[in-house]
Amino acid sequence: MPEGIEGWVERIKAGDRRAVARAISAVESGDAAGVELVKRLFSAGGKARAIGITGSPGAGKSTLVEKLAAEYRRDGRRVGIIAVDPTSPFSGGAILGDRIRMQNLSADEGVYIRSMATRGQLGGLAPTTHDVVTILDAAGCDVVLIETVGVGQDEVEVARLADATVLMLVPGMGDDVQTFKAGVMEIADVFLINKADRPGADRVEQEVATMLGISPRLDGWLPPIVQTVATTGTGISEACEALERFFGFSQKEQLELGRQREKWRRRLLELLRQTLFEKVITERLPHGAIEARVEEVRQRHRDPHSVVEEIVKQSTAEGQ
Amino acid sequence: MPEGIEGWVERIKAGDRRAVARAISAVESGDAAGVELVKRLFSAGGKARAIGITGSPGAGKSTLVEKLAAEYRRDGRRVGIIAVDPTSPFSGGAILGDRIRMQNLSADEGVYIRSMATRGQLGGLAPTTHDVVTILDAAGCDVVLIETVGVGQDEVEVARLADATVLMLVPGMGDDVQTFKAGVMEIADVFLINKADRPGADRVEQEVATMLGISPRLDGWLPPIVQTVATTGTGISEACEALERFFGFSQKEQLELGRQREKWRRRLLELLRQTLFEKVITERLPHGAIEARVEEVRQRHRDPHSVVEEIVKQSTAEGQ
Repeated sequence: MPEGIEGWVERIKAGDRRAVARAISAVESGDAAGVELVKRLFSAGGKARAIGITGSPGAGKSTLVEKLAAEYRRDGRRVGIIAVDPTSPFSGGAILGDRIRMQNLSADEGVYIRSMATRGQLGGLAPTTHDVVTILDAAGCDVVLIETVGVGQDEVEVARLADATVLMLVPGMGDDVQTFKAGVMEIADVFLINKADRPGADRVEQEVATMLGISPRLDGWLPPIVQTVATTGTGISEACEALERFFGFSQKEQLELGRQREKWRRRLLELLRQTLFEKVITERLPHGAIEARVEEVRQRHRDPHSVVEEIVKQSTAEGQ
Repeated sequence: MPEGIEGWVERIKAGDRRAVARAISAVESGDAAGVELVKRLFSAGGKARAIGITGSPGAGKSTLVEKLAAEYRRDGRRVGIIAVDPTSPFSGGAILGDRIRMQNLSADEGVYIRSMATRGQLGGLAPTTHDVVTILDAAGCDVVLIETVGVGQDEVEVARLADATVLMLVPGMGDDVQTFKAGVMEIADVFLINKADRPGADRVEQEVATMLGISPRLDGWLPPIVQTVATTGTGISEACEALERFFGFSQKEQLELGRQREKWRRRLLELLRQTLFEKVITERLPHGAIEARVEEVRQRHRDPHSVVEEIVKQSTAEGQ
């Protein structure tokens, strides 16, 4: 560590952007320092609203995030942005490149921008994102915008850790609305029909409204549908208002409480799963044990279930 | 169990479709019987080739799978089809509905079709798919086609368990090729440009070829690019040939060996992670322990990392 952890914690709490950036790097790389920071910063948080922005590639998520951030800044709020970059699981190369569009924002001391690579890690993206939100929260961000890559399982996991989720749809993306309907539509607290200057925006809005009418949410919230043209800024303030209305409803109806419990339950269980695994792998298994078993399984001398049952028995046997 | 496990095992090995279907259900629902069957069937497998079919929603994956299956059937091969349905993580409702298009195939005794719900399970789709492939393999399938929903992390995981992966692209899907380039393009052993009767197919092919030229695979395989129109069957036999060539290359160059080792390593580690977790949750933690901790974290009295470290310490303490 280049400085005492206490000094680092204080600088993050003071909103120092370099200290925040280094803390996020520590979390991302799985450093012990990252965990230590999150532990110490956790009690300072709880104020930031995390907003997940999901939608198909090409829906205009980055532009929307940029415009939302600018809108919140005009309101004097501090904004964190976590942009999830789909990094190749094989080559490790990022693809979205430098987010030049975000240049204006990154000159602003009240904005914290971070691209995060998914790196195909088994635990998914959500665990790291949790800790990054904790850091941004402690650094004084009022809003944390989490931009996901697409609308797959990872995105659903990320949405579950957000306090509100925006789903972006675009007219003319054909059967996407249809395809996402049951799988992802339910995660949306607010729908945005982006690129609404294209033909078909009203039809998409109608489809979403119909779908919401057919299967209303159990919590009583009727997700607003806002038409936007993110590139020109049209509809951005309406989108912010829709989010505010959701937060108001969520608090009044005590939805927030249930949602937060569910969020932390997931976080604890996922962290437990990962930590137990690492402990056994690093402390309980002799070096090369896994490789020898892989070979037995590959040759079909033994099956994976029997092998794992044996390892679990051995590695926790002393406790029986 | 409605019959002895030995009888069940024998009926699966004989290719009995009802026994196979019930075995897959047992695996999907996490029954102990499912694990027992997989254990007993594992040594009977190792012959089937698993082929992953990935691509954006709307790329025509289901139609392609149907046509590929028919082509393999003409060749006298037994075919398993695993279609991954994106089930809502909230409502649990499937969306792709009855696969009416597959009706012709399902009348064929040499075809085993199964839709699997992702159900948003934390471990992802891959673990269950592994066991289902084991069952279909033991039932005598020569080919198992695994159709994924989209091209997210789940799909990459599924691709990693397949012996070959087909990535479908479609002309006119705009920035998708661009977006997937580094994230998913590397998982493709064969590229299909489907709906190749649309304008732009040659341009997509050119883009893929350029990309493959810029970043060639380390294993020396140059993925073929085949133009198809799945609805009419155009290009299907060429797609099968491309796959055969890949399998030939893979065997000759011993890629298969490395790929299988990697597959079983992942499988063992994932299974270990899950089994350890379940053991601690069910056997070592007092009832209600997690809920009490969730509440402490939600109120920010304690942070998730400290809570989990404590649980891990306690649940494995007897072994120290």
